[in-house]
Amino acid sequence: MTDQQNEQWLLKARPVGMIGPEHFEHVVTPLPEPDLGAGEVLVKVLMLGFDPAMRGWVEDVPSYLPPVALGEPMRASGIGQVVKSENPNMPEGALVQGLVNWQRYCIAGGDSAMPLQVLPEGTPPGMALSVFGATSLTAYFGLLDVGKPKPGDTVLVSGAAGATGSAVAQIARLKGCKVVGIAGGEEKCQWLREACKVDATIDYKSEDVATRIAELCPEGVNVFFDNVGGSTLEAGLAGMAEGGRIVLCGAISGYNDEKPAPGPHNLMLLVVRRLRMEGFVVIDYLDRAPEAIEALMEWVGDGQFAWREDVQSGFENIPATLQRLFRGENQGKQLLKLADPD
Amino acid sequence: MTDQQNEQWLLKARPVGMIGPEHFEHVVTPLPEPDLGAGEVLVKVLMLGFDPAMRGWVEDVPSYLPPVALGEPMRASGIGQVVKSENPNMPEGALVQGLVNWQRYCIAGGDSAMPLQVLPEGTPPGMALSVFGATSLTAYFGLLDVGKPKPGDTVLVSGAAGATGSAVAQIARLKGCKVVGIAGGEEKCQWLREACKVDATIDYKSEDVATRIAELCPEGVNVFFDNVGGSTLEAGLAGMAEGGRIVLCGAISGYNDEKPAPGPHNLMLLVVRRLRMEGFVVIDYLDRAPEAIEALMEWVGDGQFAWREDVQSGFENIPATLQRLFRGENQGKQLLKLADPD
Repeated sequence: MTDQQNEQWLLKARPVGMIGPEHFEHVVTPLPEPDLGAGEVLVKVLMLGFDPAMRGWVEDVPSYLPPVALGEPMRASGIGQVVKSENPNMPEGALVQGLVNWQRYCIAGGDSAMPLQVLPEGTPPGMALSVFGATSLTAYFGLLDVGKPKPGDTVLVSGAAGATGSAVAQIARLKGCKVVGIAGGEEKCQWLREACKVDATIDYKSEDVATRIAELCPEGVNVFFDNVGGSTLEAGLAGMAEGGRIVLCGAISGYNDEKPAPGPHNLMLLVVRRLRMEGFVVIDYLDRAPEAIEALMEWVGDGQFAWREDVQSGFENIPATLQRLFRGENQGKQLLKLADPD
Repeated sequence: MTDQQNEQWLLKARPVGMIGPEHFEHVVTPLPEPDLGAGEVLVKVLMLGFDPAMRGWVEDVPSYLPPVALGEPMRASGIGQVVKSENPNMPEGALVQGLVNWQRYCIAGGDSAMPLQVLPEGTPPGMALSVFGATSLTAYFGLLDVGKPKPGDTVLVSGAAGATGSAVAQIARLKGCKVVGIAGGEEKCQWLREACKVDATIDYKSEDVATRIAELCPEGVNVFFDNVGGSTLEAGLAGMAEGGRIVLCGAISGYNDEKPAPGPHNLMLLVVRRLRMEGFVVIDYLDRAPEAIEALMEWVGDGQFAWREDVQSGFENIPATLQRLFRGENQGKQLLKLADPD
């Protein structure tokens, strides 16, 4: 491949069950000599971010973003560098972030509903996608706006070692809450206790989650931030304190099921314990992103906030890298680096 | 039985599956010559109310009220007349309402957490338990405080012909909402359309609920007040509009299951459609009862509010009357009359 070529991963088939490389097609196409419209830019993609929510984007059902069409390059968050510009706000050479695609080059800006943003001066691309990325905004607004924790509350987080979960756990800690994190494996649990300074962890691979929640949260859970769904949601529900809030962020345990799994058997607890269960999507909060970024920059600057980046490489490895999320193999924010900035 | 005797239905066994007469024991005991404590009253029970929530009261699990103990008379809402009083607020002859028991006479007042209240002058006992009773307060606070409907919203109600559901449907209508009610059988649906003036009904016994919700609510449901749970909750969830609220009041469809049924398969809709699902218990709102009663009295006085009372009789029929609720046999608020006031 030369600089005169583009490379893409196109959605070839809608997955039923686990998503994998077989659902995408690798193509090499000529680099477009674009006739850019007003406001548009040609962007060279430098780094891709991966998120469990991407599994939903390839389902052919109406959702908060339109489904990725068959034959189109897969959508992803990413960082790029402007190589040609008809947009004075994004000059040639600028580093930009936002929604891109699984391709080397893409055209963006203009009338796009999800325009790219210029990266703040000096932000490393990895950090822009990890600790200052959409997963941290998801954590910030989901926990604070939907979960509304009060100091002294007990906050339970599932998928706690993931990019969103670890940010939730630490924001809760910084807001004066007792934090219990559920993660898979001792390595992740240890990182949560030592680097993220959570009060306690539950290793769902070796412990009974409901039993441990009852032991660790004898007064009950006030806020449960759930990224996992399924039996984890059911166990968390059983541990809720009266008046508790369950923030539904996602349900990674079920994203690759061929048929949707049933919901929890104990939903009646919502009635007898007066619980609120509420879902949210971070794109509704993007206009308030500066508030979250400012708080995160302060915590990161003070050394109070831990995060990890799991950086893969190789254009050919993009689909397999997405699968790492659903196998629980990633340690921290899943990224894939394609190129360094010029 | 004479006036010197008491009669009781004691909880004999905790039901697994459908509750019925076999779980209660009928006993005749001497009428206590009570040594009333300060504030206590001896009450002759005149009328009993029945509510699906009573099924939960006989489960041996912690809930918003302590479980009824084995060997104790069953708890119930009711109306009584004071026959002996050590309480100046409840003189002999006064009609009172509150939590009583399945017995002819009970002692109440004093330090009880759920004291009896004197019935407002002139209120017929049936109305105090039906249109001005706890089921209407449940409807009022659940719909308005938890569901927060706005004029023009589409409100979906399940169990819509029941005491709570029909009050929800009418309060929603009076607040300027479009109302769709789900009920079992054409008789109940017709009453909802003609007397309660709901916009449309779905007969779950002869129609596919999810299909009909989609047809009747093309813009989606903004508030779903669910009394039923199970497949009805799942169908309602599928029909929700973005930002909608699901008020969980109860789940009558599952109360007599031997094992709790799984929850809805489509809980992920809470995330992608930003839905809130919230449970509540009316006893949390009892200090605000006058606000609801005042509104209900105005609507009833104006002839804008319909209700039905299904009045059974006979002390021996008490347990079987509870079962009518779970078989959908009641037409309106289920009551049982024991005696007229003196």
